Amino acid sequence: MAAIRDAEDEDRGISLKDLSQKLQEFAEVRDWEKYHTPRNLLLAMVGEVGELSEIFQWKGEVKRGLEDWDESEKEHLGEELSDVLLYLIRLADICGIDLSHAVLNKIIKNAIKYPPPVHSCITKEQSSSL
Amino acid sequence: MAAIRDAEDEDRGISLKDLSQKLQEFAEVRDWEKYHTPRNLLLAMVGEVGELSEIFQWKGEVKRGLEDWDESEKEHLGEELSDVLLYLIRLADICGIDLSHAVLNKIIKNAIKYPPPVHSCITKEQSSSL
Amino acid sequence: MAAIRDAEDEDRGISLKDLSQKLQEFAEVRDWEKYHTPRNLLLAMVGEVGELSEIFQWKGEVKRGLEDWDESEKEHLGEELSDVLLYLIRLADICGIDLSHAVLNKIIKNAIKYPPPVHSCITKEQSSSL
Amino acid sequence: MAAIRDAEDEDRGISLKDLSQKLQEFAEVRDWEKYHTPRNLLLAMVGEVGELSEIFQWKGEVKRGLEDWDESEKEHLGEELSDVLLYLIRLADICGIDLSHAVLNKIIKNAIKYPPPVHSCITKEQSSSL
Repeated sequence: MAAIRDAEDEDRGISLKDLSQKLQEFAEVRDWEKYHTPRNLLLAMVGEVGELSEIFQWKGEVKRGLEDWDESEKEHLGEELSDVLLYLIRLADICGIDLSHAVLNKIIKNAIKYPPPVHSCITKEQSSSL
Repeated sequence: MAAIRDAEDEDRGISLKDLSQKLQEFAEVRDWEKYHTPRNLLLAMVGEVGELSEIFQWKGEVKRGLEDWDESEKEHLGEELSDVLLYLIRLADICGIDLSHAVLNKIIKNAIKYPPPVHSCITKEQSSSL
Repeated sequence: MAAIRDAEDEDRGISLKDLSQKLQEFAEVRDWEKYHTPRNLLLAMVGEVGELSEIFQWKGEVKRGLEDWDESEKEHLGEELSDVLLYLIRLADICGIDLSHAVLNKIIKNAIKYPPPVHSCITKEQSSSL
Repeated sequence: MAAIRDAEDEDRGISLKDLSQKLQEFAEVRDWEKYHTPRNLLLAMVGEVGELSEIFQWKGEVKRGLEDWDESEKEHLGEELSDVLLYLIRLADICGIDLSHAVLNKIIKNAIKYPPPVHSCITKEQSSSL
């Protein structure tokens, strides 16, 4: 049973709560909690967003799938995306925000704001969000 | 069995892959995929990071848990954190990056870079990352 | 004499120090100095960078000169660029940094780091900064 | 006469137009104009905003004047502020926006939006901008 469950989990992938817990333990064991104030974490996240932007800065328009990027660039991109994610999750936790709950609510709110088109036509104005 | 599994899932919360799939469907049904290029999504994410920063901009240092914030402010914060998260996940997908895989690798890499202290002492230099 | 000087000034345009002084007076008369701490101003600037990014977010690659943008969009862009500039200048001032001095030094430093090519050839590696 | 004028200019400091011209020459001589598209420059600026944020990220609230910062940190800060400024000016130029004109208009607009208080009292709502 446990083995089946683990395989299913593996397939389903890591959850926001799993990551949140890992980050909490990571900070605790290193005694970093004192540095993890909301605005410190926010600025750290902005720093990582800057590093992410640097990867894309001189490239002109970039194609989906990054076909012409080499593996080391893609790996670097994965790391910077991860850094933003980790600080974002940590920021939510330190602020006492349940990010899993908030993100599901936001998707529902977006679905109401931008209802799917009855026919295939869609106006440009509707394309202003996810 | 299914009921138990669902309850466990509920407890474990939403996964990155679940969110990724929801966003893919959301874009498809609205015919928004044409707008979701890597740099469009990156700039949209930077826009949301700006909105997140605005929440914190005139507040001076903010305490963990946001005890003195009212509920509507916390809800707004949850929404802006979610917007950053949604664009981040979508950006990773459109780039063909497996974010679940990348983030676990990054945590391992961070753990090697900043090993937990043998004793409780930790130098300030070690505090430069999560 | 004064008239000639004014005309020359007009031609030369506003200086960083002029702007700095205007912002100082603006804050003083409104009793806003108490809000203008370094990290408050930094986050306010990040907020404006977000608004600037939103202008460009769904546009794909944008041509120099913005030929196909309408006047109201260009005016909006001018406002957001200005907001970033105003917070940047104010941040420098509140930190006690002489931005006029710093920026001239940085241009010199960049010129040393990226010397002009003897011939016209230039490698891609040299293009990583202004 | 010229000497007096130069001394006055020195006192008045560098103008936005002076910087704009220097950056144009800098790019031309290095054949970098091909890289200087609006969205490339915007992302480069976001990258520099990230580096600026990193300077402040683990510091908690920072005092005006940065009394307790050492000289090398202040110099680093001056460089990162300059990098943001240089890309901002270059972005405005490449977009065909007259930043000197736009910024003076924006100050006037702000002054109308936030009129100076008749008496010394000012509400918190008025403090949402420069």
